[in-house]
Amino acid sequence: MKIMGTRLHIDKIKATDNLERFLKKINLQKFRPHFKTHQSIAIGQWFISRQISKITVSSIEMAVYFSKQWSDILIAFPINLLAIDKLNAIDNNVKISILVDQGTPILKLDSLLKRNMDVFLKIDAGYGRAGFDYDDLSLIEDTIQQINSSKNLTCKGFLAHFGNTYKAKGKQEIAEIYQLQKDRLLNLRSQMAALLPHCIISIGDTPSCSVLDKFEDIDELRPGNFIFYDLMQEQIGSCTLKDIAVYVDCPIVAIHIKKKQIVIQGGAIHFSKESILIDERTIYGRWANEEHAIYLSSISQEHGILDFSQYPELLLQFNVGDSLSIWPVHSCLTADILGHYFDEDGNQLDHFKTNNHEA
Amino acid sequence: MKIMGTRLHIDKIKATDNLERFLKKINLQKFRPHFKTHQSIAIGQWFISRQISKITVSSIEMAVYFSKQWSDILIAFPINLLAIDKLNAIDNNVKISILVDQGTPILKLDSLLKRNMDVFLKIDAGYGRAGFDYDDLSLIEDTIQQINSSKNLTCKGFLAHFGNTYKAKGKQEIAEIYQLQKDRLLNLRSQMAALLPHCIISIGDTPSCSVLDKFEDIDELRPGNFIFYDLMQEQIGSCTLKDIAVYVDCPIVAIHIKKKQIVIQGGAIHFSKESILIDERTIYGRWANEEHAIYLSSISQEHGILDFSQYPELLLQFNVGDSLSIWPVHSCLTADILGHYFDEDGNQLDHFKTNNHEA
Repeated sequence: MKIMGTRLHIDKIKATDNLERFLKKINLQKFRPHFKTHQSIAIGQWFISRQISKITVSSIEMAVYFSKQWSDILIAFPINLLAIDKLNAIDNNVKISILVDQGTPILKLDSLLKRNMDVFLKIDAGYGRAGFDYDDLSLIEDTIQQINSSKNLTCKGFLAHFGNTYKAKGKQEIAEIYQLQKDRLLNLRSQMAALLPHCIISIGDTPSCSVLDKFEDIDELRPGNFIFYDLMQEQIGSCTLKDIAVYVDCPIVAIHIKKKQIVIQGGAIHFSKESILIDERTIYGRWANEEHAIYLSSISQEHGILDFSQYPELLLQFNVGDSLSIWPVHSCLTADILGHYFDEDGNQLDHFKTNNHEA
Repeated sequence: MKIMGTRLHIDKIKATDNLERFLKKINLQKFRPHFKTHQSIAIGQWFISRQISKITVSSIEMAVYFSKQWSDILIAFPINLLAIDKLNAIDNNVKISILVDQGTPILKLDSLLKRNMDVFLKIDAGYGRAGFDYDDLSLIEDTIQQINSSKNLTCKGFLAHFGNTYKAKGKQEIAEIYQLQKDRLLNLRSQMAALLPHCIISIGDTPSCSVLDKFEDIDELRPGNFIFYDLMQEQIGSCTLKDIAVYVDCPIVAIHIKKKQIVIQGGAIHFSKESILIDERTIYGRWANEEHAIYLSSISQEHGILDFSQYPELLLQFNVGDSLSIWPVHSCLTADILGHYFDEDGNQLDHFKTNNHEA
């Protein structure tokens, strides 16, 4: 008997197909994929074998993790001054780029650094989460000037995340968000040309990068989720169900014929509590089956409830002791919580979280 | 400079005060605390030093983890047949109790076990998540008979979780849910007395155990969350803000004066995406400060946004490079995701997740 709990599986063929599709339309020089989705050295190898040479991560700790494998790393999260010692300890041969946001004390940052680093200004081009407001020219100008006068920092450009594409539905809405915010960044670049003559524009949400084909005027693209995709991206229109490259195998632990439900060992500690609305119902996952839309309709800490009310006859084909494969709503969070992957041969792939609980 | 990322801290005094409060009203013989909240051998020691001798866990893997420390463990989750080999491998000196639900193949389970085990029937007394319907007497009777005829299984009683108390507000509503479902269990016990003469009734949600004082007719109580509490329990009325024994220290990475927001390194990968509604606003955490209600109003994978719009003057006292302590909405999920604790001396305490990413 196989010894098994709830496991995250990766379909390497689908994941590398997703990657290849991006490489067909994104110039290698522009491509700096975000590794916060997979957080894995083993999966990073699939990028290396395709000549990708630079990556994005979301924390200093994650940069440390990948610095053994990569020599050009952008930390696309406003710099955490409390962890500067870890940043300084990264091998000097690894090129590190960092991010500043409103309130980052540039002089103090400069004094804490023990080496040169490239810096991007995080720009809020309309998403509303983090960054300098794209139209706050005086503050942006002042910040660039401070960086230009520093000892260790080199200002490289503007970085934005068009996160509102995650609320969009379909290509047209995504294209509109992309165009509006791109124009704001290009306009900002023009206005700062005197202070920042070789300004790099870095963007990269998965919806834009998935549905658009041309990225003119953009210097760097940082999508992350595309390597796995998930139900949220399928709903947005970034992918089809066939493209989802990860699924969670969950043991069936109860079958409730009257309620038309199956109880699985698959809850918030496996999927996270990320949800989407489908036909006004909140769902947390879906049976990895394109034909039958059977959803994870409720989850608690360990329990997941699969709703078979639309397909009661299918209930009869399952038994307690079987397992069901479930597509996650948000693969980044599911991978982060589970901290592992199993490939088709049953080999376990590494995940940053497995090794960094002390961060 | 302290090297620091986002860290979960535990206040041992508050946690052990929460435990002592329970021990004043719950008989030691009845007390089988649920360890799925803290999942820690180190924290388990605080229970051992108070003469607690039996515990509850939520998976076979967690039973394996705690079998080095505890000799009486109930796995309060419908048995996962796929992991029976792990269960069989637990030391014979550890008494293990397991749970069956609708669809558990009793004969097969019996044949797979290599040792005797106590069994509870999971009963759905009104919550609607898992278990035998409390009024499905023929199925319950049939299941008890199968267990009674088995070789390795001993039927011990009925186990229920009154999970709908999590949706209640205040003592009266919780007491009503408790009374109704308790009566259903007692009635079931009477009806099954011939088949199950020494039937144990096991319940134990934190809201009931927190707000009620007497647990007559109940043989076993399994609360878990009470050791930490959190914002959800405070909202239910199980505790006060002063009782919350865990908080997440999050680096401040940006301060947005115009938007009256602070951006912290504290997102869904730290807090989970569990939320509650306060004054019709969805919140994901709260600054650990009783006086000022400053909420984590939005989170993405790593970012958290603290809304200072009610207290803009407080914004000025913080700087990028400081950290803020945040109370979680659901401490069980936050601890599970972070997989560590730091005590007041900076020592790290273990967490099951740190050691079990292969489950």
